[in-house]
Amino acid sequence: MNFSFTLQATDGAARAGTLTTAHGEVPTPTFMAVGTAGTVKAMTAEAVRATGAKIVLGNTYHLMLRPTAERVARLGGLHKMMDWPGPILTDSGGFQIMSLAKLRKMDETGVIFRSHLDGSAHHLSPERSMEIQHLLDATITMVLDECTPFPATHEEAAKSMRLSTRWAQRSRRAFVPREGYGQFGIVQGSVYEDLRKESAGALREQNFEGYAIGGLAVGEGQEMMFAMLDITTKLLPADKPRYLMGVGTPDDLLGSIARSVDMFDCVMPTRAGRTARAFTSHGVFNLRNARFIDDAAPLDENCNCLACARHTRAYLHHLIRCEEVLGPILLTTHNLTYYQSLMQGARAAILAGGYTEYCAATRAGWET
Amino acid sequence: MNFSFTLQATDGAARAGTLTTAHGEVPTPTFMAVGTAGTVKAMTAEAVRATGAKIVLGNTYHLMLRPTAERVARLGGLHKMMDWPGPILTDSGGFQIMSLAKLRKMDETGVIFRSHLDGSAHHLSPERSMEIQHLLDATITMVLDECTPFPATHEEAAKSMRLSTRWAQRSRRAFVPREGYGQFGIVQGSVYEDLRKESAGALREQNFEGYAIGGLAVGEGQEMMFAMLDITTKLLPADKPRYLMGVGTPDDLLGSIARSVDMFDCVMPTRAGRTARAFTSHGVFNLRNARFIDDAAPLDENCNCLACARHTRAYLHHLIRCEEVLGPILLTTHNLTYYQSLMQGARAAILAGGYTEYCAATRAGWET
Repeated sequence: MNFSFTLQATDGAARAGTLTTAHGEVPTPTFMAVGTAGTVKAMTAEAVRATGAKIVLGNTYHLMLRPTAERVARLGGLHKMMDWPGPILTDSGGFQIMSLAKLRKMDETGVIFRSHLDGSAHHLSPERSMEIQHLLDATITMVLDECTPFPATHEEAAKSMRLSTRWAQRSRRAFVPREGYGQFGIVQGSVYEDLRKESAGALREQNFEGYAIGGLAVGEGQEMMFAMLDITTKLLPADKPRYLMGVGTPDDLLGSIARSVDMFDCVMPTRAGRTARAFTSHGVFNLRNARFIDDAAPLDENCNCLACARHTRAYLHHLIRCEEVLGPILLTTHNLTYYQSLMQGARAAILAGGYTEYCAATRAGWET
Repeated sequence: MNFSFTLQATDGAARAGTLTTAHGEVPTPTFMAVGTAGTVKAMTAEAVRATGAKIVLGNTYHLMLRPTAERVARLGGLHKMMDWPGPILTDSGGFQIMSLAKLRKMDETGVIFRSHLDGSAHHLSPERSMEIQHLLDATITMVLDECTPFPATHEEAAKSMRLSTRWAQRSRRAFVPREGYGQFGIVQGSVYEDLRKESAGALREQNFEGYAIGGLAVGEGQEMMFAMLDITTKLLPADKPRYLMGVGTPDDLLGSIARSVDMFDCVMPTRAGRTARAFTSHGVFNLRNARFIDDAAPLDENCNCLACARHTRAYLHHLIRCEEVLGPILLTTHNLTYYQSLMQGARAAILAGGYTEYCAATRAGWET
């Protein structure tokens, strides 16, 4: 089976498609739950499936340090290790080295860093990142890039983007094509249209199976992010999936889908679930708040997840106050379910030609 | 439907029976998972059911402080609040006040204490304990007693037991009989045969729906505990269930079933699951141990729980090292499943007249 992307419908710039991979199909737009260290935090793989998730993300940086890529390979790969036979996308490790590792240093060869866990020294080159992702058995491999910090001058952004371009070329050469597996390039260029154009153009020459948009959601604000999406997605081939990395809030997702993004990942729904916050059809709630102490209503009456179907807000509040693990379990379950239903609703609306109305109705719901 | 206990078979002193309650039937011997604050720690109610559990325990002390018994009642009772429609046994609160609360003081009226959470003052009398358990909608209500500390002189043990006897009489009067609900008396008397006899005799006059054996597993050792069980269970009516409180290891359970105990509860399987320990058919493992780092075997090849059917020891070790919540989730799932299968195996063996052989084979397995 080839790795492929087919478009079922467009509505304005919004797209409904299907990603076909060696590990199954993914209807798009899709949200990838983040399974950093080989587990979506506080969730069994069964529970992740029950949220409607079709694809999850693994973090190369965490997995290369623990349990190590070679060990994951000996255990039969990440799919088998974490009981997720479906598609898995792995990042390249670069982003998290820059945000988590100690004494990191970047040069033409790659990134040299010390583990935040034990201080051990590591070198991550484009070639080694591809090898690690291969060992993990990633369905979708990401090229090694530098996520250009924000703000950056045009000169800094150009230099960073061109390094990423050279690394993308090396990553492409190091990638081992396998039936149903794919590799995505990552467009950089900060907030500069000419640089985004140069980056996208160079990546297209490599004919990746998909294209990510990187260097956004790093502090530039939603308006600028949307402006960059408007520019960047036009530069990408229509017959390949588009993945906006590390985004975002439900509103970010709706706006990005409107700008023809197909794939997302973000720690927001899982992290929020561990800090008592719930994304619902009525907006964001903090379940630690005392106003929920006697609230016998379900968390979100429009949701059928375990938390909403079987429990009350008062019970969730109780669990959080008691620091019971079931609190994060149920809120993570809900948040991931909410994100998945947002994606399912968006897809259905695009197929029906009513995406604008869907966004308006969803946003109106958040205010009630 | 009456609250009843029927014996299906005996094998030596070991008993296989069925407890019938307003909330469903419980085959015995049975192990009750501890759901302290309205949740079995790290488990959804669904997951607890999947372990084979038929009855769970709730802690009056914790629930009376948070979210309070009145609040649980307003939420429709503990069954509804925690999504456990099956039978629930609640303790009286006395034991945990003595081990957790601050500035506790006991007199004839009951126990005066300050909450370990906020220092607020409370008074728990036999009547209030019954009222709280009624508000929680406990299927099985326990009388308020004093768990006699160990060691205790004969005089201390006698005084303590007689206070518990008077409280049991007051608890019985305060209990509101309801179809399918029951109340258990608690035999005290420390390690003194004459006191156990006096306690059991006085409780039998109250004609409780079941009898617990208290004041054991408090430091007297397994040999003494078994000796006390041999004495105490003979003093109890054969047609009523017998519940050994707060016990214990798998070996304790096998030995106590041989001494005609029908019901158990203990935090051991759940607490162990949060500290990397697993009870298996090959004995106890500490999954934090580095020897599991490359162990691709299932935790227990004789177990069909999620942890054993879908994952490796190496993955469990990885989760624990990374402090991922899924580690405690999977180990708690396994430990509760192991305890339930131990009970199911014991019951099947008793019904087949092979309990001695079952115990021998199980114990032999722990050594391999």
